[in-house]
This record gives sequence, C-alpha cells and structure tokens, in this order.
Amino acid sequence: MVLSKAQLTRSHIIHKSAEVFNQFGYARTSLADLMQATGLKKGGIYNHFASKDELAIAAFDYSVGLVQQRYAEALRGQRLAIERLRIVVDTFCSGIADEPVMKGGCPLMNTAVDSDDAHEGLKHRAQAAMDKWRTMLQKIVLYGQNRGEILAVVDPESVATIVIATLEGAVMMSGLYGDRTHLDLAHRHLIQYIDSLQATS
Amino acid sequence: MVLSKAQLTRSHIIHKSAEVFNQFGYARTSLADLMQATGLKKGGIYNHFASKDELAIAAFDYSVGLVQQRYAEALRGQRLAIERLRIVVDTFCSGIADEPVMKGGCPLMNTAVDSDDAHEGLKHRAQAAMDKWRTMLQKIVLYGQNRGEILAVVDPESVATIVIATLEGAVMMSGLYGDRTHLDLAHRHLIQYIDSLQATS
Repeated sequence: MVLSKAQLTRSHIIHKSAEVFNQFGYARTSLADLMQATGLKKGGIYNHFASKDELAIAAFDYSVGLVQQRYAEALRGQRLAIERLRIVVDTFCSGIADEPVMKGGCPLMNTAVDSDDAHEGLKHRAQAAMDKWRTMLQKIVLYGQNRGEILAVVDPESVATIVIATLEGAVMMSGLYGDRTHLDLAHRHLIQYIDSLQATS
Repeated sequence: MVLSKAQLTRSHIIHKSAEVFNQFGYARTSLADLMQATGLKKGGIYNHFASKDELAIAAFDYSVGLVQQRYAEALRGQRLAIERLRIVVDTFCSGIADEPVMKGGCPLMNTAVDSDDAHEGLKHRAQAAMDKWRTMLQKIVLYGQNRGEILAVVDPESVATIVIATLEGAVMMSGLYGDRTHLDLAHRHLIQYIDSLQATS
C-alpha cells in the first residue's frame, strides 16, 4: 500500500499529537503545542482535522492501537491461560517502564481521568478501550476454566477489575513519584495473585 | 475562636473552589468557574489568593484534610491491626461512593494525574499526601507484626502500595463508567487480601 502525501501528513499529525495529548492532557494541550510537535502551521493541521476534538480522538485511537499491538505480539502462540494472564501483566508493566509505548504514562488512565467530567467523545472512546481490555482478561479466565487450568470459583469479571485497577493505580503512584517502585511492587503482587487462581492438578 | 470576615471569606473560597478543581482539574478550571462557584468577583478572590496556583494548593490541602479527618474518626478506638486496615479500605470506598467527601472522585488521584507533567507545586503536595497515606498503612502493618497479629514475612511497603493502587485504579474505572461496580469488586478483593496477611494463632 502506497500512502498519499495527505495520508502521510495525517498519520504524522496523529503520531506527534498523541504524545503531546498523553503528556499534557486534552484540556492543557494548546494549538501551539500541537503546531510545535508536528512542525505544521494551524492550517496544515486543520486541513486534516475539523477540530482539536477530532484530532484528540484520532490520537487516542492511535495510542490504544499501539498498546493492543504490544499485547497481540506478546500473546502470540501462548496457549496456557495462567501464562497469558502473566503476559498481560508483564506487557503492561514493560510498556510503561521498560520500553514505553508512549511518553506520559498510560493513555487510557490519562484519558479516563482527564475526560472524567468533560469531554464526552473521548470518554466514550476510553470506555470502549477499557471494555476491550476487560473482555480480553475475562476471556482468558473463562478459557482457563474451560480447560480446568483456573479454579471454577474464580469470577472472571473480578479478575479483570483487580488486574486492571492494581496496574493503573500503580502507574498513577509511580508517575507521581517519577519512580518505578510502585509499578514493580504491583507487578510482583499480581503475578502471585494470578498463581493463586490456578487449579491444583 | 471567632473568625474574622476575611477568614470566613477565605475559607468559603477554598471550600467552593476545592469541588470545582476536583471535578474539572487544575488546567480546565477557569477564573469564571471559580467566580461562579464562590459567588465572588475576580477581586474578591484575588484579595485572598495571589494566584490560581495559590488557591489550587489551598484547595488541595483542604480536600486532603477532609479525607484525613474521615480516617481519623473511623479509626478512633480501633486497636486491632487487621481491623484498622479493613477500616481504611471501608472508609476510602464509602468516601467515594456512599457519602462522597467531595464531588469528582479522589482529589489525590485527580491531582496526581492532572499535575503529572505540569504543576510542580501541586505535584509536591500530592506526593506529600501520598507519603502520609502510605506511612499510615505501613505503620498499621508494623504495629500488627509487633503484636504478632500480622505475618512477619509481609512487607509493609508492599501492602501500602497494593491497597492504594487497587483502590485508586478502581476509582478510575468506576469514574470512567459512572458505576460503582469496580470499586465494590476492589473493596471485596482487598478485604480478602487483608485477611490473608493475618498470622494464624
């Protein structure tokens, strides 16, 4: 597939804006910040996007896409449910602290907190991304239960919430201190938690 | 103690602004929002605070103070460490979902995420509040270990991180969906987690 110049520019704008939105949040990101990050003038940006809103949504979708790609690559070929859950936790932590998917921490948390009482469009996008993440985890648990690998009493919805909440809360704490200790502690705890879900054979 | 009119006005401004900052975040809160919430004109506000920054810090300290008061009241007279940990979790959850301390969710998380890459003064305040919360939990665990109530192998720092991260991540999720399910799941999970720290006598 050969991209047209317009498509290339659009993609460049999304890529550069995504990091700016993720670091500064939707409200605090100004047109000047976006112009600086993209190296384009106002018209160059608004040629491709009707509004800051539209660009913010495209940038969020792009960020979420990058994260999903990491999960897909890391999970490829892995069939054991417990191992798949561990990989989700490992991939999340490494995508924050080792090989950051994006500057500024987790785009989902940033958008969820930032759009909390404000931007409806972004909020719906963040809900959809959270639904997808929860569903991924729930499916792994159900699959593990069907294979007899995970205890039948385990509630898949609860596992999804506990894993996501612990990771996201730890990102907030590590972000606040600028130090990965809390993420590492959460990582270790979740690996033990995941082990505790295992049916003893 | 009788407050002067100036002190009363200052306190009114802080009280009203705190909810606005907590709902909209520091960056998105405009002078117009603060004027509307306080019923004062620009001069009436800036008579008492040199800048929006100074007001935001006073409002954050006020919010954190309200939360700390809840913990102090709930913990009064409770001597068992496991019970004290449970009370911290119960009090946090009820302060978000049952009798909200403040509109807009947890001031600490909102400020931590909002000030992430921006407002240094607020960020330091949020770090100090987080330090205080972590220390409270760590001290309860150490006290429980000294009394033989909590397993000696338990790492107090890790308990503090796991409890806080799980609660804060769940607040983010419940806030995103506008539904308390995730907070309730985290609550239930943490009560089990706290039970698992108990030394069997």
